[in-house]
Amino acid sequence: MKMEMIEEAAKVLKGTIVHTPIFKANQIHKNLFIKAENLQRTGAFKLRGAYYKLSTLTQEEKQRGVVAASAGNHAQGVAYACAEMKIQCTIVMPTTAPLTKVEATRSYGVNVELVGDSFHEAYMHAKKLQESTGAIFIEPFNDERIIAGQGTIGLEILEEVPDVDVVFIPVGGGGLASGIAYAIKSKRPHCKVYGVQAKGAASMYQSLQQGKIVTLPQVATIADGIAVKAPGDITFALCKQYLDGIVLIEEEEIAASILVLLEKMKVVSEGAGAVAVAAAMFEKVNLDNQKCVAVLSGANIDVNFLSRIIDLGLLKTGRKVILKMQINDKPGYLSKVIDLIADAGANIIRIAHDRETKDVLSLKCNVHFYLETISQEHIQQIMDMLHEHGYIVEVVSEPIKKLNGEYHP
Amino acid sequence: MKMEMIEEAAKVLKGTIVHTPIFKANQIHKNLFIKAENLQRTGAFKLRGAYYKLSTLTQEEKQRGVVAASAGNHAQGVAYACAEMKIQCTIVMPTTAPLTKVEATRSYGVNVELVGDSFHEAYMHAKKLQESTGAIFIEPFNDERIIAGQGTIGLEILEEVPDVDVVFIPVGGGGLASGIAYAIKSKRPHCKVYGVQAKGAASMYQSLQQGKIVTLPQVATIADGIAVKAPGDITFALCKQYLDGIVLIEEEEIAASILVLLEKMKVVSEGAGAVAVAAAMFEKVNLDNQKCVAVLSGANIDVNFLSRIIDLGLLKTGRKVILKMQINDKPGYLSKVIDLIADAGANIIRIAHDRETKDVLSLKCNVHFYLETISQEHIQQIMDMLHEHGYIVEVVSEPIKKLNGEYHP
Repeated sequence: MKMEMIEEAAKVLKGTIVHTPIFKANQIHKNLFIKAENLQRTGAFKLRGAYYKLSTLTQEEKQRGVVAASAGNHAQGVAYACAEMKIQCTIVMPTTAPLTKVEATRSYGVNVELVGDSFHEAYMHAKKLQESTGAIFIEPFNDERIIAGQGTIGLEILEEVPDVDVVFIPVGGGGLASGIAYAIKSKRPHCKVYGVQAKGAASMYQSLQQGKIVTLPQVATIADGIAVKAPGDITFALCKQYLDGIVLIEEEEIAASILVLLEKMKVVSEGAGAVAVAAAMFEKVNLDNQKCVAVLSGANIDVNFLSRIIDLGLLKTGRKVILKMQINDKPGYLSKVIDLIADAGANIIRIAHDRETKDVLSLKCNVHFYLETISQEHIQQIMDMLHEHGYIVEVVSEPIKKLNGEYHP
Repeated sequence: MKMEMIEEAAKVLKGTIVHTPIFKANQIHKNLFIKAENLQRTGAFKLRGAYYKLSTLTQEEKQRGVVAASAGNHAQGVAYACAEMKIQCTIVMPTTAPLTKVEATRSYGVNVELVGDSFHEAYMHAKKLQESTGAIFIEPFNDERIIAGQGTIGLEILEEVPDVDVVFIPVGGGGLASGIAYAIKSKRPHCKVYGVQAKGAASMYQSLQQGKIVTLPQVATIADGIAVKAPGDITFALCKQYLDGIVLIEEEEIAASILVLLEKMKVVSEGAGAVAVAAAMFEKVNLDNQKCVAVLSGANIDVNFLSRIIDLGLLKTGRKVILKMQINDKPGYLSKVIDLIADAGANIIRIAHDRETKDVLSLKCNVHFYLETISQEHIQQIMDMLHEHGYIVEVVSEPIKKLNGEYHP
């Protein structure tokens, strides 16, 4: 890797990509800035590497067309770049890829083939396609020019936060981390640069620990964009040399970060995009008096899934609650409880009776109340009030467990 | 109003406010740019006017402290600015203000008083406070310096999109629209500038139609930030002179805009913030070959409410569906249907039996299935498949009605 390549990439990308903003995020951590690369065209940083790589192809190579395999953001990056440069392009995606990502890729006017049940099968098919057609294969991360393209983010960070002390970068295959770490360490050696992985997909972490490339038998995380079984040889070598370490993030911390980014920073992030922010939010390394930049790398999350994360977050932060109450199974008793709850300022969104398990002798039955509430304190007030009225009631939903950080929604 | 005042405001605000990005939004409309003022500190544009206004107070006035009334974004803008300038500040909010907005306002360290059931009562109390304490009252919109502060957005639009042809601006009291319209019309007279209001709160529209300030008896819209019963005299005069007109937006269009901004542009918006984007998305004026900028003015939406908007959007765009089916009320029949639905690739999230209305003779009962689906076509495939198997089934949820625009999620 050479700094000149990253600087050349920056020149090529100027005007084509969005120079994404860097926001102060003191609502999340007082020393935190966020590089909002989730607002990049195509919703992720992958466009940078793909566009730069394609720009370096010869005219003859461009005419042969390109092929790539991806279940997600790389597909959209390559497709967008090919559309801009009018290069023939085939993207192979696994049949399991979310339809929204398939449709987004197709929307750039490229040829999309759905093959196989996993990324691996799609990748093998793409490789075969390349051999039979003579097209150029565009690697997702293990390619110097791809890495140089992602590295331009490092230059932008140094430009806008020249006195940065700590940088957090999501790591899947390691292309993004390699490029940014190389750029920052070359220009500002004493700045600490950490990769961030989900605990359920810690391939680079394991590889660095063992000093050799480790291939995980399986990966499992809601951060699907970084669910990569093994780093490449180029990215492994660069991460080994330029990263100060890898920090690991729990699934629940990822979900909490997605919610807080939505609520406080007003932006959408995907799981993989949010892990670096989670590293700062749950202070995985000491950030006292350290100016920190977290790279928010992508936003391509299914809204169905986002909706679930919000619901989960609402339950866990006291804005929704599920109460289980015993009430008399006779006319008038339910309405009395409903009045009490309404007076306490909670909004009832669902009531579920469990009459089958009622205690026949006492003529009581269990009722679940789904309520919109304001805070944990508000829930406690409602509980106290119901107890005072003699009701047997318990909270069925659980508040967020105390994580080693400072999430105060 | 004078251009010099807006230019002075821009100088004062530099470094304090975020110079918010302008994004190309061709996924929403091919000629659209969005001024993402929802990413402003405090989550809305109000900070600009409040900060500039406060900066023009004399030292003696600053020492007297300030008072303001607001149910939302103005409160946060004034509170943030006062905290920055270390000015004593009391914000009066109605008791009905969302707790998240109350807490956000308090978080800036100012004094918050909850008084009255409506903005009007809070406003009257704040005025009384001002009289008794001698503090300076900060108007939400009907003040030249407030208007000049908001007008700085107009300068930023012209700087980044100098060849803009059409601008859409949300209108509540009219402060934002007055400032931006004045700035743009002064520098680029042939650019069309439209205000945008919710149909359920069209006070400026009515006032301009009748040539005099109209006070609406009531307002009702999910865009609570622009639910204002009457414009001020200053804003009315400026809007009359500088706006090319007001376009009106339906509630369902506002909801669709919030969803598409979340999904395609990856940002959160509140109802009032989204109306200008809705005006472009549903092409309320002809935008052929017109470079258009919509001001996305705010993002302070309650996540509970956002979650509902997403759910509604998912139902209306085919990513969720509720089916009502008649099935035999005997063991084994339900599982058969569940298998068929799973094979069709839909995810069952809830099943509700309606056994009480079962047809006793045929031994059938009604079952509601809540499914996660992929698209309207997917739903149609599921329906066709179930019909082929002889089931009596209907879609209970409704797809989005064809609006006069081009929303293709």
